[in-house]
Amino acid sequence: MKKLLTALCLSAALTGLTAATALAASATPTAATGSAKHALVLQTDFGTSDGAVSAMRGVAYGVDAGLTVADLTHDIPDYDIWVGGYRLFQTANYWPEGTVFVSVIDPGVGTTRKSVVLKTKAGRYFVGPDNGQFTLIAERDGVAELREIDESINRRAGSGESYTFHGRDVYAYVGARLASGAISYEQVGPALPSESVIRIAYQKAANNNGTLRGIIPVLDVKYGNVWTNIPKQLFEQLGVKEHEQVQVRFFHNKKLVNTVVAPYEHTFGGVAKGKPVLYLNSLLDVAIALNQGNYAAKNKIESGVDWEVEIRKVK
Amino acid sequence: MKKLLTALCLSAALTGLTAATALAASATPTAATGSAKHALVLQTDFGTSDGAVSAMRGVAYGVDAGLTVADLTHDIPDYDIWVGGYRLFQTANYWPEGTVFVSVIDPGVGTTRKSVVLKTKAGRYFVGPDNGQFTLIAERDGVAELREIDESINRRAGSGESYTFHGRDVYAYVGARLASGAISYEQVGPALPSESVIRIAYQKAANNNGTLRGIIPVLDVKYGNVWTNIPKQLFEQLGVKEHEQVQVRFFHNKKLVNTVVAPYEHTFGGVAKGKPVLYLNSLLDVAIALNQGNYAAKNKIESGVDWEVEIRKVK
Amino acid sequence: MKKLLTALCLSAALTGLTAATALAASATPTAATGSAKHALVLQTDFGTSDGAVSAMRGVAYGVDAGLTVADLTHDIPDYDIWVGGYRLFQTANYWPEGTVFVSVIDPGVGTTRKSVVLKTKAGRYFVGPDNGQFTLIAERDGVAELREIDESINRRAGSGESYTFHGRDVYAYVGARLASGAISYEQVGPALPSESVIRIAYQKAANNNGTLRGIIPVLDVKYGNVWTNIPKQLFEQLGVKEHEQVQVRFFHNKKLVNTVVAPYEHTFGGVAKGKPVLYLNSLLDVAIALNQGNYAAKNKIESGVDWEVEIRKVK
Repeated sequence: MKKLLTALCLSAALTGLTAATALAASATPTAATGSAKHALVLQTDFGTSDGAVSAMRGVAYGVDAGLTVADLTHDIPDYDIWVGGYRLFQTANYWPEGTVFVSVIDPGVGTTRKSVVLKTKAGRYFVGPDNGQFTLIAERDGVAELREIDESINRRAGSGESYTFHGRDVYAYVGARLASGAISYEQVGPALPSESVIRIAYQKAANNNGTLRGIIPVLDVKYGNVWTNIPKQLFEQLGVKEHEQVQVRFFHNKKLVNTVVAPYEHTFGGVAKGKPVLYLNSLLDVAIALNQGNYAAKNKIESGVDWEVEIRKVK
Repeated sequence: MKKLLTALCLSAALTGLTAATALAASATPTAATGSAKHALVLQTDFGTSDGAVSAMRGVAYGVDAGLTVADLTHDIPDYDIWVGGYRLFQTANYWPEGTVFVSVIDPGVGTTRKSVVLKTKAGRYFVGPDNGQFTLIAERDGVAELREIDESINRRAGSGESYTFHGRDVYAYVGARLASGAISYEQVGPALPSESVIRIAYQKAANNNGTLRGIIPVLDVKYGNVWTNIPKQLFEQLGVKEHEQVQVRFFHNKKLVNTVVAPYEHTFGGVAKGKPVLYLNSLLDVAIALNQGNYAAKNKIESGVDWEVEIRKVK
Repeated sequence: MKKLLTALCLSAALTGLTAATALAASATPTAATGSAKHALVLQTDFGTSDGAVSAMRGVAYGVDAGLTVADLTHDIPDYDIWVGGYRLFQTANYWPEGTVFVSVIDPGVGTTRKSVVLKTKAGRYFVGPDNGQFTLIAERDGVAELREIDESINRRAGSGESYTFHGRDVYAYVGARLASGAISYEQVGPALPSESVIRIAYQKAANNNGTLRGIIPVLDVKYGNVWTNIPKQLFEQLGVKEHEQVQVRFFHNKKLVNTVVAPYEHTFGGVAKGKPVLYLNSLLDVAIALNQGNYAAKNKIESGVDWEVEIRKVK
C-alpha cells in the first residue's frame, strides 16, 4: 500500500509538473513544430471581385486554421511591379518581426523569373516573384538571406498542371507554411546570393548644392497627393522653417511638366482649401498636396521611376 | 525519505492545482493582464488601394497577435464625418458588447480637435477624432464616459514626428491596446465631461399632425435606395397598411426637389420592376427605392443633414 | 496526518491527470460543445462601402469570438445569381473540408424562395437562398444533404421584423452557429430532398465530332479574360499541341458575335503583347485572353448562360 501511494504521488508530481510546463509553453501560440506563428499578409494586383484572392486565403487556412491572414491591398495597378514594391516598403515595418508577406504582381509568370522568399535584416519575410518588386525593401532593410522556392516540395498537393496561378498554388502555400511554422526558412529551398535580388534602377534622394532631387515613387491615390522619396533628414538640410516657401519642379522623362511654389506646413489645414502645400507624409518623406483637392489630377502628375522632382528653398 | 515524499506530494498537489486553475482561466482567451479580448473594428476614408489601412492592422497585431481585427468600411467618402458616423450607428450594435471601433475620418487632423475614446451605455468603445462623427451613436446609445487619449503614453513607440497619420500611430494603437486588454479604459487618458462630445445638429424624426419629418442621413449606396431617419414606430402612427399609398417629398436646403407617391410594401418585390416603393430597411427605418433600380441617381437625391423628407398617408 | 497526506496525494494525482488530459484535448481549438471550429466565408452583392457586411461579421463574432470569418467577395454584380454561384464553384474546394460558405445574392428576398444549408459530398456547407446559385457546386461536388433553415430557432434574437436583411439576421447567424459548432448540421432544420435544389439550365461542356461546345460562365473581370466551362480533359481530345492554332467562335443567344484564331500556350507571355491566346486558366478550363489586353472589352464579350462558345483545332 505504501509503495502504491509512493508511486501514485510520484506520478502525480510528474503529471503536475508536466502540465505546468506545457501551460507555460502554450502561453505563446504554437504550431505543431513548436515554432511561433506569424501573421501572413497578402498583396496582389488581382482585385477582390472574383474568387482568386479567396482561393489563396483558403489554401492558407488549409495549411493552418489558426493563422492570421490579412490583406495589404489587392488593388495594385495591373502588372505594376514598382507600385507593389512601394506598398511593401510603405507598410511592412509596421507589422511585427517575423511577419510573412506574399506579394503577387507577376507579369512574367511562366518565364524564367525566379520564385523566392527574401528575408530582410529587419526580420521579415517576402514571398513572390523576384522581378524588382523587392527593390526598396532590400535597399532600406537589407537582405539577410535570399532563397529560391523549391517547388518540388513547396507546392500545393494536386497542383502542378496549372500554369497561371502561382499566387494560390506556390506563394500563398509557401507563405502559409512559413508563417505557421510548418516549415523553417531553410526548408523553403536553396539559398541564392543575397546580392542577386533583382533591383530596379531609380534616382535616389540627394542634395545637390541646395537642390533636392528624387522621384515620385507613388501617388497617395485616394487624394491625389504626390509623394516623393526625399526623406525628412534631407529636407531639413534646406533649412526651411514652417510656413516658409518652397519651389517644387516635376519632370517626366527629364522634361519639366509642372512647377509650384508652396509653403512647408505640418498639416493640410495649414493652407486654405484648394491651395498647394508641402508637408511630410506618414513615412516622413516630402509630399505635395492641395488642401482638400487632388494635386496629381489637377496637374496631370503620375508616378514611377520616370517621374522626378527638384525642390529648392525660395529665398 | 518520508519527509522527501511528503514534500514531493505537497508540491505535486500544488502544481496540479495551479495547472488546473490556470487551465480553467485560459478557457476564455486572455491577454497578459487577464482581461478578456474584444474585437477591433476599423473604419476610415482611406480606401484600400494603398498601405495605409494595412499599416494600421500591422500596428494592431503588433500590440496583440491574437486580436480579431475586422473592417467596417474604408470607403467613407472623403472627409465625410456625417456618413462615417452613420455607418457606426448602422453597424455597431450588431457586434458583441466590448467591441472597440476605430473610426478615422479626420479633415481636422493637426487642428485643435480632440482625440477621444467614447464608451457608450451599450458597452462599446469608439476611438477617433471628436468632430461630430459620434453624434448618432451618442444620441441612441448614450455616453457612459468620454476620455481624451493621453498621447504621451498611448502612442506607438517611435512615432511623434509624423503629423498626418494619427490613424496608425494613435488610434489603431490605442484601439488595439484597449481591445486586447493591455490597458483598461481608465488608462486611455483623462475623463472629459460626457456631454461635451461634439454633436452635429440635424432634424430629428418627428410627427407633425400626420406629416412625418426627418432627414436622409445616408443613401444605400450600392442600390441608390434613399434611407431616412424615420423609425418604424413613428411610421406606424400614420396607420398605413401594406400596399396602401404614401406621399414622400424630398427637400434640399429647404427647397422641394422631388415628390413621389408609392405603396408601402414589405419587400422590393412588392412592386413591378422600376417602380417606386416605400419600405422598412434593415435598421427598421423608412426608406424609398425603385425595385431593381436606382432611386437616388434617377431623381438626383443625395444625403446629409441638409436633405430633408416629409411623409404623408395618401387618403 | 497520514490519512491527510494520502488524501492530498490522491487529489494531487487526480488534479494533475485532469490537467494533463484537458491540455491534450485543448490542443485542437474547440467550441463549447466540443466540436471543431471551421472557417466562415462570406459572399454577397452588397459591396463593402456601407455597414451591411460589417453587421454580418459582427453577428458572426457575436456567436463565437474565436471564429475565422473571411471574405470571398462582396462585388458580385447586383442580383447576379449565376456569377455568385460560379465564384463559389471557383473557390470553395481550396478551403478546408468543413468550411461554411454564406452566399447572399437574393433578388427574391421576401418571396417564396427557400433559405437552405446545402452540404456537398466534398464535405463543405453552403448557406443562402436556394435560387439556382448552387447549380455548379451541386453538379460538381454532389449534394450529400439539403436542409431548410428553421427560422424559429435559427434567427438572431431580436430580429423578426426586418424584411430585407436575411444576410445578417438568418444567413450569417446560422452560418456562424454551424461553423463554430454551436449547432450541428441536423439542427439547421428539416431535410429537403437532395434533388430538389434549384438548378439553372445551361450548355454543359461537350465534344461534338471535334467541335467543343460550352458557355462563358464568367469573365476574369480584372483583365477581361474570357473563361469557358470546357475542361482540360475535353480540350486534350482535340490533340492540339502547344503553339498550334485553335479557332474560337463566340455566340450570344445563338447568334455569332466574334471569331478568333489563336495559339494554345501555357502562359500569356507565349504571344506578343496585345495578341490573342488560348490557355488553361487557374481552374484548368479553357480560356481566351489578349496578352496584357482586355479581350472581353475589345470584342464586346459578356458572360452568362446565354453566351456560348465553339472551339475547333485549325488544320
